[in-house]
Amino acid sequence: MAPSSYTRLILQERPKGMINAKTFRRDEAPVSELSAGPGQVVVKMVYISLDPTQRIWMRDEPSYLPPVQIGEVMRAIGVGAVVKVGPNTNLSPGDYVTGFLGLQEYAVVPAQQVHKIDLVPGTELIDFLGPLGVSGGLTAYFGLFEVAKIKKGETIVVSTAAGSVGSLVVQFAKQAGARVVGITGDDDKARYVKNELGADIVYNYKKPSWKDQFDDQVGQADVYFENVGSDITDFMLTRLKTFGRIAVCGVISEYNVEEGQNVGIRNYIQICLRRLRVQGFIVTDYASKFPDAYKEIGSWLESGSLEREYHVVEGLENAGDSLNLLFTGENKGKLILKVAEPGGEKV
Amino acid sequence: MAPSSYTRLILQERPKGMINAKTFRRDEAPVSELSAGPGQVVVKMVYISLDPTQRIWMRDEPSYLPPVQIGEVMRAIGVGAVVKVGPNTNLSPGDYVTGFLGLQEYAVVPAQQVHKIDLVPGTELIDFLGPLGVSGGLTAYFGLFEVAKIKKGETIVVSTAAGSVGSLVVQFAKQAGARVVGITGDDDKARYVKNELGADIVYNYKKPSWKDQFDDQVGQADVYFENVGSDITDFMLTRLKTFGRIAVCGVISEYNVEEGQNVGIRNYIQICLRRLRVQGFIVTDYASKFPDAYKEIGSWLESGSLEREYHVVEGLENAGDSLNLLFTGENKGKLILKVAEPGGEKV
Repeated sequence: MAPSSYTRLILQERPKGMINAKTFRRDEAPVSELSAGPGQVVVKMVYISLDPTQRIWMRDEPSYLPPVQIGEVMRAIGVGAVVKVGPNTNLSPGDYVTGFLGLQEYAVVPAQQVHKIDLVPGTELIDFLGPLGVSGGLTAYFGLFEVAKIKKGETIVVSTAAGSVGSLVVQFAKQAGARVVGITGDDDKARYVKNELGADIVYNYKKPSWKDQFDDQVGQADVYFENVGSDITDFMLTRLKTFGRIAVCGVISEYNVEEGQNVGIRNYIQICLRRLRVQGFIVTDYASKFPDAYKEIGSWLESGSLEREYHVVEGLENAGDSLNLLFTGENKGKLILKVAEPGGEKV
Repeated sequence: MAPSSYTRLILQERPKGMINAKTFRRDEAPVSELSAGPGQVVVKMVYISLDPTQRIWMRDEPSYLPPVQIGEVMRAIGVGAVVKVGPNTNLSPGDYVTGFLGLQEYAVVPAQQVHKIDLVPGTELIDFLGPLGVSGGLTAYFGLFEVAKIKKGETIVVSTAAGSVGSLVVQFAKQAGARVVGITGDDDKARYVKNELGADIVYNYKKPSWKDQFDDQVGQADVYFENVGSDITDFMLTRLKTFGRIAVCGVISEYNVEEGQNVGIRNYIQICLRRLRVQGFIVTDYASKFPDAYKEIGSWLESGSLEREYHVVEGLENAGDSLNLLFTGENKGKLILKVAEPGGEKV
């Protein structure tokens, strides 16, 4: 029997530091009331992406998207199946879609705000939150090729190299013929990045010797793909070649930190001395080029040349604890919340 | 009677903090020994440029130019007259030239390393260290038009707006139709930047109220022309529009500070959140375009539409104390050391 109610997670309190039991309020709403108005669709969620950037959305500060307001369903990217369509939509029941669907089991959204998923050969639904996902592969792709403008033969350093974006940057950069240096936070992840993702060299930044080893083995790099900030950034600012580039995808070391309490960057002056280009970006800036990315990443998936690893947690109620894993570094691979079985779509 | 010896300032000790009596050693060399070998010229110096970047050259750290070594003549940009030519040069006695000529009264340099000066109408020799100087107008010009890519109608914020580069950025940006906001360190300079250079708004950053006034009067800017670093940079990182640009010309707050003792930048994360482009540059990167800049700046000078102010100190022996003025903010306008009368050239 289908459940009569579904769960939504409402932002109840802005966290200071890690997410806690008061951050989200669990709200139950009747399934019977789910209806699609003109231009709308009802989506039954299957997988929800858990991303560091959600911690930014919880902050009451200007950002690239408006802060989630207290009392609103928490924003999240997900994939699901259309189960009801209103008038004037170009989607049909059974279509899979992805977009900003929220931390909830069902979403009612404008059809124009979601993208229909085309399950190309070699892909599964979950890959649309991984190599083909907005907060995964697409971010890696545009950061690497449009912002960092990586070239064959160049050396790129990637922080959080075992993470959802980092793991794909490593692999895409290898596809592009670059020499890839990964940075991660434990030995197990370091082995994964080297042996399974194919990085040329990997460092565990928690070992004090890593900087000396970097100097011996790498020296200077052309590109730094920035996911962390803090001490690693300060180091990389002194290890980039003249005209080196930093693609600033994220600064995860600061998302849990209150304003003014962060470590800060001491080597800003190197931007001047080394004539660096440091550029922030958001994947949606490149929306018009998504089809190109889908095509190229899809071809890599189809040929079996991309490794992907999912860290899947079941149940919406585990969203908060799971999000914290991103900041303790306990997840390996793309962190996904599974809220329904794929293929079992009905209201 | 011509003097029998000339003075050179040798870097004797790398300063910690401000330049002091031990930084330079005064060396007297016989004028009679000055000779030009093949491809060389002997230049009698007239004006020497005193620039914050000289403090970088004194540090024993990797930079955009090699550090000046202990025992070498201190590097400096200057203008002077050719007084002797060796075989195989394309210069003649009496030609005025500019280039890296050093803190000395005479320089023996390869002719290919200096640029011949063409005194276009409306210009004086000293202007080739000001609006037409490598460390003055050319730096302002390429930072503004090639790096920041300022456009008509945009708002640009310029730090050290009364300084050698800043004062020209203010005026060039006005020529380009931008709204110009200057930042400087005292009320007298602020009046100069507004009333004589033509900035739309000017703040004295030493007044605590300036940030509130900025929010009321400016709000958000398109471009920040970076000359200082530190607290002003942190503020500007939060006051740039999405896709704003920072042209990093210099970071004067850090040149006198030992490694690791600087204040640091806390708002690095804004590069990500606001998708900023932060780019360092050095004027010599644009050497192939210098003729364009000479032509355009020259036309502004000829039409009388550029204000320039020189803070001239006489005598090579005052170089060290004068350089310190750049860090205390006591100079107004371009700081120049005059070591000979223009027009009085002979060995």
